[in-house]
Amino acid sequence: MTAVSVPSATTSFDLGPARALSCRECGNETPLAPEYACYECFGPLEVAYDFGRVRREDIESGPQSIWRYRSLLPVPTNVASHPNLEPGNTRLIEADRLAKALGLRKVWVKDDTGNPTHSFKDRVVGVALAAARELGFKVLACPSTGNLANAVAAAATRAGWQSVVLVPSSLEQAKILMTAVYDGALITIDGNYDDVNRVAQELAAENEDWAFVNVNVRPYYAEGSKTLGFEVAEQLGWRLPEQIVVPIASGSQLTKVDKAFRELGSLDLVEATPYKVFGAQATGCAPVATAFKAGHDVITPVRPDTIARSLAIGVPADGPYALDSVRRTGGTIEDVSDEEVVEGIRLLARTEGIFAETAGGVTVATAKKLVETGQLDPDAETVLLITGDGLKTLDAVSHKVGPKANVPPSAEAVINALKG
Amino acid sequence: MTAVSVPSATTSFDLGPARALSCRECGNETPLAPEYACYECFGPLEVAYDFGRVRREDIESGPQSIWRYRSLLPVPTNVASHPNLEPGNTRLIEADRLAKALGLRKVWVKDDTGNPTHSFKDRVVGVALAAARELGFKVLACPSTGNLANAVAAAATRAGWQSVVLVPSSLEQAKILMTAVYDGALITIDGNYDDVNRVAQELAAENEDWAFVNVNVRPYYAEGSKTLGFEVAEQLGWRLPEQIVVPIASGSQLTKVDKAFRELGSLDLVEATPYKVFGAQATGCAPVATAFKAGHDVITPVRPDTIARSLAIGVPADGPYALDSVRRTGGTIEDVSDEEVVEGIRLLARTEGIFAETAGGVTVATAKKLVETGQLDPDAETVLLITGDGLKTLDAVSHKVGPKANVPPSAEAVINALKG
Ligand SMILES: Cc1ncc(COP(=O)(O)O)c(C=O)c1O
Ligand SMILES: Cc1ncc(COP(=O)(O)O)c(C=O)c1O
Ligand SMILES: [Zn+2]
Ligand SMILES: [Zn+2]
Repeated sequence: MTAVSVPSATTSFDLGPARALSCRECGNETPLAPEYACYECFGPLEVAYDFGRVRREDIESGPQSIWRYRSLLPVPTNVASHPNLEPGNTRLIEADRLAKALGLRKVWVKDDTGNPTHSFKDRVVGVALAAARELGFKVLACPSTGNLANAVAAAATRAGWQSVVLVPSSLEQAKILMTAVYDGALITIDGNYDDVNRVAQELAAENEDWAFVNVNVRPYYAEGSKTLGFEVAEQLGWRLPEQIVVPIASGSQLTKVDKAFRELGSLDLVEATPYKVFGAQATGCAPVATAFKAGHDVITPVRPDTIARSLAIGVPADGPYALDSVRRTGGTIEDVSDEEVVEGIRLLARTEGIFAETAGGVTVATAKKLVETGQLDPDAETVLLITGDGLKTLDAVSHKVGPKANVPPSAEAVINALKG
Repeated sequence: MTAVSVPSATTSFDLGPARALSCRECGNETPLAPEYACYECFGPLEVAYDFGRVRREDIESGPQSIWRYRSLLPVPTNVASHPNLEPGNTRLIEADRLAKALGLRKVWVKDDTGNPTHSFKDRVVGVALAAARELGFKVLACPSTGNLANAVAAAATRAGWQSVVLVPSSLEQAKILMTAVYDGALITIDGNYDDVNRVAQELAAENEDWAFVNVNVRPYYAEGSKTLGFEVAEQLGWRLPEQIVVPIASGSQLTKVDKAFRELGSLDLVEATPYKVFGAQATGCAPVATAFKAGHDVITPVRPDTIARSLAIGVPADGPYALDSVRRTGGTIEDVSDEEVVEGIRLLARTEGIFAETAGGVTVATAKKLVETGQLDPDAETVLLITGDGLKTLDAVSHKVGPKANVPPSAEAVINALKG
């Protein structure tokens, strides 16, 4: 058992509406602090709030970024005044052509490739950095399957912070270069993500002023994913969708989209209409889908083997909570083969002109499977979360798509090639 | 001399505030039509408007995309109701760390990597497609140095249109795959961009219902770049910057940013304060910079040889007009070596966490040179246009940046690597 220090209640931090940290397992509350594990039961801590009154108008008159939701996040009131990447405010696209191809009445695609480093991770890192600054950390760090690496390195340098980023050495070239270019410390590690994560846990324990965003700052970091849910609801005209399909790696994002929808309902920012949350995994790394299908509460770790490397977490920290969200809302969790992932990427690209990474392929392909197996209601309005960018996982499609022809510079040659 | 048909004045199109096409050379006006060359003098046509009264409030209450400026563009009033990629509304970032590194008092970076296909070309294509639909075209097409290819293929498929995209076969792999994935017809051509462009001119003449966005729909297409200027001004709180640095390929974008600033001033949407427009080219393809420095009005074509392939247009159609804009506003045009381009990419990445493609490296490196040579006023507020994405030109940095170390999965190994 690792030693978990007892936080002092003397320091008080300005983290906006955040009131305390509460244990997801035993409910024990502890003051806001740079902590992440319960000192009673070692369960994971989560941010608890005193929201007070939050009005749509206040949100709508805020910045065009996740900071418009600062009154619902564990960040200082002046968060937007510190240099940051201004993530969020990404497109929610009415996807009629995709809907038709999937056999769904109404589909919306949340295109988070428009974020600064082209994945939803800019959201969680934005919140983590703001909280870490307030909590007194000095270095921004993470273990990552790639997108988080990009987001941490970029956000840190913009804020003038040092970063330490750890990734599996097998990571896609694009994700490695897009981390290295920001000039922080990037270390590749021989091993899979779960190995990298273990190293990060150890380093977090030894280096007091390093904020490993998804380890020791995780309670704050994770809240950033709520902004996906907030934005979807606001962009729909302040209402909840009936169904939403969310990719699962650690499972954090899925639980926070659910939390966002519940908070909006209980704050009367939307009508608390019923919604179902569906989870999407790649078959080559589907520990949460497997537990769901078996009716288990406990997740059996797996050794990942899939092209969806950003989702390749074999020991998903929030897996049990993702199961809770899905079961409580009446959703399900499915998994799809690597071949289906590639077809999912291509289907989204050719119908809506959005080029997603493998994680997006997982979401689209899972939606397809959920329709085909009668798990998604074809008449219910459905949102798909596209959380990462196709330019980062070109290998997934490079053997499948390409030019129709290569010709000499003549109009006739082009016309002949088009006929061929 | 190719035959240019005389447009009939009988059809009338709903292209919003657009009133006519006017010749940039002789000023002759002709009704709105699918035309691009003056039938008096063969000069290039440009859209002329009857704006009427346009108010800030109407713009501010519009969509979060370029369509908020529809009353200033040649598009139907209901343009936003057709499926489109909803481009624009990208971040304008206060870049204090970059400013310090460059020796400028105040710098803003317009980060157009946030667009749907991650370059400013989504803006021009959005306008071109909307106009092409109204003008009766059926196929969306282009010759491209890469970014336009991505934008045309994506926008066409989302709208349910066929596309034909022509690119030099030497194009970056990322740009080829990101075009092919949308499943239109992509043809690579053995030759440089200027060869590809010649083929497109011929095809445009032979295929009546093909809208080559930057050839026969060019007058409409080009107006889309004005939205960069509109957004910058609105994001600055409805005022013009004192200096702006714009990359030049054909020169179109630069002239339209200038046009946007003038229109805003004459419509009283901003105070018509003085501003200077600066042009940026790569030395390996600097025909406009060369003409500027020599004091010429005529551009001598060059054979491009630079890593900034998206800017590699040796025969720049709007070069003379770009010269006009720069000279009239009191700016200058500079060019930078490929090595400086790479350093520009890295400087922007490590100061502001924005990963630009080579064209962005050209802009940053040129800004640096303009400061060092006393051409940019260090005390004047400066905007840099970052128009394309680093993930599309990874080769430019792949030999320069990378992980600090690769280590076995142990905390000690990481710590040692960080010390080393
Ligand atoms: C693109 C993308 N989508 C989704 C996820 C899933 O995130 P979570 O760990 O919160 O389940 C990740 C995680 O890295 C990701 O990179
Ligand atoms: C990223 C990028 N920036 C700037 C330009 C310059 O555009 P223009 O031809 O309007 O000068 C291009 C043209 O392809 C481009 O791809
Ligand atoms: Zn507990
Ligand atoms: Zn003329």
